[in-house]
Amino acid sequence: MSPFVYLDYAGVALFAATGALAASRKQLDLIGFLFFAVITGTGGGTVRDIVLGRVPVFWVLNPTYILICCAAGVIVFFTAHLVESRYRLLIWLDAVGLSAYCAMGAAKGLAATGSPTIAIVTGTLTATFGGVLRDLLANEPSVLLRPEIYITAALVGAAIFTGATEFGLPLYAASAAGVLAAFAVRGGALYYGWTFPTYKAKPGRHPDDVM
Amino acid sequence: MSPFVYLDYAGVALFAATGALAASRKQLDLIGFLFFAVITGTGGGTVRDIVLGRVPVFWVLNPTYILICCAAGVIVFFTAHLVESRYRLLIWLDAVGLSAYCAMGAAKGLAATGSPTIAIVTGTLTATFGGVLRDLLANEPSVLLRPEIYITAALVGAAIFTGATEFGLPLYAASAAGVLAAFAVRGGALYYGWTFPTYKAKPGRHPDDVM
Amino acid sequence: MSPFVYLDYAGVALFAATGALAASRKQLDLIGFLFFAVITGTGGGTVRDIVLGRVPVFWVLNPTYILICCAAGVIVFFTAHLVESRYRLLIWLDAVGLSAYCAMGAAKGLAATGSPTIAIVTGTLTATFGGVLRDLLANEPSVLLRPEIYITAALVGAAIFTGATEFGLPLYAASAAGVLAAFAVRGGALYYGWTFPTYKAKPGRHPDDVM
Repeated sequence: MSPFVYLDYAGVALFAATGALAASRKQLDLIGFLFFAVITGTGGGTVRDIVLGRVPVFWVLNPTYILICCAAGVIVFFTAHLVESRYRLLIWLDAVGLSAYCAMGAAKGLAATGSPTIAIVTGTLTATFGGVLRDLLANEPSVLLRPEIYITAALVGAAIFTGATEFGLPLYAASAAGVLAAFAVRGGALYYGWTFPTYKAKPGRHPDDVM
Repeated sequence: MSPFVYLDYAGVALFAATGALAASRKQLDLIGFLFFAVITGTGGGTVRDIVLGRVPVFWVLNPTYILICCAAGVIVFFTAHLVESRYRLLIWLDAVGLSAYCAMGAAKGLAATGSPTIAIVTGTLTATFGGVLRDLLANEPSVLLRPEIYITAALVGAAIFTGATEFGLPLYAASAAGVLAAFAVRGGALYYGWTFPTYKAKPGRHPDDVM
Repeated sequence: MSPFVYLDYAGVALFAATGALAASRKQLDLIGFLFFAVITGTGGGTVRDIVLGRVPVFWVLNPTYILICCAAGVIVFFTAHLVESRYRLLIWLDAVGLSAYCAMGAAKGLAATGSPTIAIVTGTLTATFGGVLRDLLANEPSVLLRPEIYITAALVGAAIFTGATEFGLPLYAASAAGVLAAFAVRGGALYYGWTFPTYKAKPGRHPDDVM
């Protein structure tokens, strides 16, 4: 088996665990944990496969992914109440999953189209969409809208993977570079509170902006 | 025509009616009723078809489904204000639609892949996704996050349909078993307030959990 | 190149700009602007292509669309703080984008299926879904739920394009008629506050309606 399969399994399992942690915060039952684990674990890759025209999607072709999500959901169900802060754990697991998935998504986009632009887009999309779905379905504030750097980490990882591959690095090395770069950016953003400068126009400054 | 077509029409019409009831609660105009009826009625089946690689999706191949949704939307538009509680009606129609759709979705997943795991996943997904889309678009509290058993009902119906089919029951019998089982679980949950035990760790127990 | 390509580029660029304006209202960083620009600009067309079975979707086949979205995102990033009301600009750009996209979406639906019903549905879906995604991801009140006529404008434009094409008008003329009709309806609704009559049953009239 290719090392990509393990990277994929790891990304799926980590995102599945964040989905189950969201279910825990919402006090859902075991089946709710499994549902959120499956949706969050497979969501990003499902969107990636669909836009690339790779259907049936990966988990339909290989149901092992569903079982991995369910296993992650069961583990979180029996342990989440022991964790001091479920949200902090969720956000860090999400960071690792995002790092694995941005390289994975870029690799599949590059393999399917040969276009670096598309590889970067599918890498970023794959890495962020599971979390977006999780937050939407759980009615949690979206991780996209938090101030610390998030989407940028996925973009950096996808771009570094793509660039390294285009420069002829072997897949192992390009993947490692992409995953580590994404985690360095997202982990640093979480740990040090890194943000980018923005134009601090106040929302609602003009009355129509709150209409 | 196969009995499945009627089961499908029934599931679509019932979910369409719940979408129109959501439009009624939001005081939308007739076109808003039709839009919510179409999205809710076809949403679950659309996601099912896409992940299975069955594209163009069912309502593109057979526009009758769109007309059924529009008919349901028009009927609800002219009658919803007569109903004592639109939300109670919505939630019960949703229960019947969910029961029809979990067997239907499992049947299509099984036919497309032969995998019982995938059949159960597509059955559960098909039965729940229309309601998820409806609640997201209407900005209503998600039916997923309510305490009474919901996803479990779809899972039970899909699993019983799949198991019965694997054990050699004819499609009629397996469908009837799946639909009735799902409705027994969801109807009981609604009527008696059935819930599953959960770990009642309070959300926000740790300060980071509300960060 | 066909005139449709320019109509498509225009619709994508305008919706991308509304996504970037939503990012501005949320005070996101540059990458956040690009993400919202890409998702909003391509969202409606992506859903259209997927349900029609046209995968890989349009922007995977032609990455120019991604670059157009990014350009719109960059322009908005450096100018949004100069605009008096970002929400008013967003809502008017959305109106123009909706007008371009309803004709475009109907044209692709008609070309793919030959069914006028499907053409009207894909036209309406394409024109509204980018805005729906933008509002969901940005946690803004959905443009669907605002009182002024919105979905109807997309439906009218898609129906007039489809009808004109069925009556044998050339594509140029049918497109112009659809775009102008949609903009007349939506622009009028915004400018004059047009609404349709609705049954004004109060939401929450029955206690269960707020349960």
